[in-house]
Amino acid sequence: MKKTLAETRLYRAEQNEKILGAGLKEFNRFFALDTAAYRAGALPVQMKELMGLVGSMVLRCNDCIFYHLDRCVTEGCTRQEIMEAMNIALVIGGSIVIPHLRYAFEVLEQLSPSGARTPSEVDGPRGEQGTT
Amino acid sequence: MKKTLAETRLYRAEQNEKILGAGLKEFNRFFALDTAAYRAGALPVQMKELMGLVGSMVLRCNDCIFYHLDRCVTEGCTRQEIMEAMNIALVIGGSIVIPHLRYAFEVLEQLSPSGARTPSEVDGPRGEQGTT
Amino acid sequence: MKKTLAETRLYRAEQNEKILGAGLKEFNRFFALDTAAYRAGALPVQMKELMGLVGSMVLRCNDCIFYHLDRCVTEGCTRQEIMEAMNIALVIGGSIVIPHLRYAFEVLEQLSPSGARTPSEVDGPRGEQGTT
Amino acid sequence: MKKTLAETRLYRAEQNEKILGAGLKEFNRFFALDTAAYRAGALPVQMKELMGLVGSMVLRCNDCIFYHLDRCVTEGCTRQEIMEAMNIALVIGGSIVIPHLRYAFEVLEQLSPSGARTPSEVDGPRGEQGTT
Amino acid sequence: MKKTLAETRLYRAEQNEKILGAGLKEFNRFFALDTAAYRAGALPVQMKELMGLVGSMVLRCNDCIFYHLDRCVTEGCTRQEIMEAMNIALVIGGSIVIPHLRYAFEVLEQLSPSGARTPSEVDGPRGEQGTT
Amino acid sequence: MKKTLAETRLYRAEQNEKILGAGLKEFNRFFALDTAAYRAGALPVQMKELMGLVGSMVLRCNDCIFYHLDRCVTEGCTRQEIMEAMNIALVIGGSIVIPHLRYAFEVLEQLSPSGARTPSEVDGPRGEQGTT
Repeated sequence: MKKTLAETRLYRAEQNEKILGAGLKEFNRFFALDTAAYRAGALPVQMKELMGLVGSMVLRCNDCIFYHLDRCVTEGCTRQEIMEAMNIALVIGGSIVIPHLRYAFEVLEQLSPSGARTPSEVDGPRGEQGTT
Repeated sequence: MKKTLAETRLYRAEQNEKILGAGLKEFNRFFALDTAAYRAGALPVQMKELMGLVGSMVLRCNDCIFYHLDRCVTEGCTRQEIMEAMNIALVIGGSIVIPHLRYAFEVLEQLSPSGARTPSEVDGPRGEQGTT
Repeated sequence: MKKTLAETRLYRAEQNEKILGAGLKEFNRFFALDTAAYRAGALPVQMKELMGLVGSMVLRCNDCIFYHLDRCVTEGCTRQEIMEAMNIALVIGGSIVIPHLRYAFEVLEQLSPSGARTPSEVDGPRGEQGTT
Repeated sequence: MKKTLAETRLYRAEQNEKILGAGLKEFNRFFALDTAAYRAGALPVQMKELMGLVGSMVLRCNDCIFYHLDRCVTEGCTRQEIMEAMNIALVIGGSIVIPHLRYAFEVLEQLSPSGARTPSEVDGPRGEQGTT
Repeated sequence: MKKTLAETRLYRAEQNEKILGAGLKEFNRFFALDTAAYRAGALPVQMKELMGLVGSMVLRCNDCIFYHLDRCVTEGCTRQEIMEAMNIALVIGGSIVIPHLRYAFEVLEQLSPSGARTPSEVDGPRGEQGTT
Repeated sequence: MKKTLAETRLYRAEQNEKILGAGLKEFNRFFALDTAAYRAGALPVQMKELMGLVGSMVLRCNDCIFYHLDRCVTEGCTRQEIMEAMNIALVIGGSIVIPHLRYAFEVLEQLSPSGARTPSEVDGPRGEQGTT
């Protein structure tokens, strides 16, 4: 990976700031809708982020994969949950997804040396993602 | 919708049978992998089918949307869960997904006159999808 | 084409109504953003609708092509303007766009027997699309 | 399938005629390039049509799948060759290709009741596609 | 951005030269069609380049975004026109377009420190792009 | 190109090893299917790799283009065969494929200074790819 996690996050934050400050309010409204889509509702945040990961992988967008993996790990998704979601993306999207799976493993390794938490490390029950 | 639910299911079943009987065993192995990806594991079947729905919508495949909606309703996903997943697909995939959202609403209406079960109709806790 | 112009428009309107009445306010906000994107601004409505047409053709969405062609003709785009925009889409998207070009010609024929207005029929200067 | 082989071919021919007669010479030049790409060269026509089939399947375009299957069968590709090419498309493109595989089997059945010629029916050696 | 504007332009020019000198005349003909699609006709060059930008963004191709932004700024499109076209692409293509919007802002900043000309800097009327 | 051939191959091999060792056996089964699709059958390996190249180009995946070009050259595909296959991909996929054509020429130049073997360097007849 060309950049560290911190560099990738910084680049995203800086560019987003430019977009949101560009003076076209529709950009701001789109970003707000994007954020809202992943808020806890009938579905917990963890499941929504995994859905975002699946969508990002089948559409083959590394920047989006990075973001959703980062969020999944933060929200306490386990390594096995992430791998099962990525397998769904692989089967739906085919071998063209494999380069993005390679990238995802690279990111996961950086996000969590052991590759995201093991199930026992996740304390709270599914749905209380605010506490994890 | 041109076909009834029963007709759509029948067409799928008949054509799948032809593919699986065509004598190229790689087709059979791919279909087996496809089925395996949605089996309960660390993630419950309901969440996996919703992920399949998200992947199908962002890739804009009506036949796949039909199949995963059919499965979601069978597995007891609530209308609200389905709508939140479809909203994630809409935001990821953009307005180009809207025609497929129209189709999804058409299918949902047929699958369940009230548009999939309401939360109160789902008895068991998340994860016991085998009982719903 | 399976449906008449009126049937296609009615189907869209009916299904959109169901989506917007489904109770997930994010759907409504997305549709509002979609509408806003094509309002006159620095770019006139005609050019925005042609851009919507290009986007729809390269992403190969017949429902979207129908909608933007319908809007383009209503807003007074000439046949030549529409064809030049479609040619950009064809070159960008390749031969995979050809089936959608065939569909677009079918729609255009219905929208305007002579295939959209000829330049001489457009009175006002570019930008006064509110009067056409 | 909604249309017979003859109807599908007729629709294509009629719409192509309209496009080519529309007065935008770039359309004609694009169609000429499209035709030229599949002419025999270092690669025989059969292999080029199979490549066109693979490209059409991974991009999930039924009209294009129809056309290239029609050409493959006309040029004498065997059923086994077609299935191996379709399997490459399935693996590259993933389960999202399956609905198009179902469609392809429908078309193949119509093109040749026994599903394209068996190897023994193909007389000439590979490359002499002009004689088949 | 890994490369400067000059480096990106040079890389493109060098590689294009190799393709066009490779001896397959179909490559040359395709490139000629590509160039022709953006020539002034019923639509002015500026609008055509903005359409090329929309097509490039919804198909998520950074190299193409770079090229059309470069051309848009050269042809005198204003910052507001570019932003409105990019917003159409964002709404059509969804959040998966956002990483490309970040890239576009990076390019715009380099192309013009103030982010493309302001409307007052554009002298000639729309359509006289030959003079800008 | 950021990496040498050797570096690109090493990165692929290392990441694939991590995926295959991650403990989700479905990943392993998918990779096995992927490998099987390109084995000699009714179609020779060379033609299958060229089909993989076409699929990779129209889906615009540089990592996949690298891999299939590497395999094509190893299997003895001639420069002319590769160029004709790439032209099919260009026509199908449109100008959005051009950046990937630039990348392909970069890779080809590294794989074989003269850009893949000339026809006279290929000894065996088509189909005996096991000997090349």
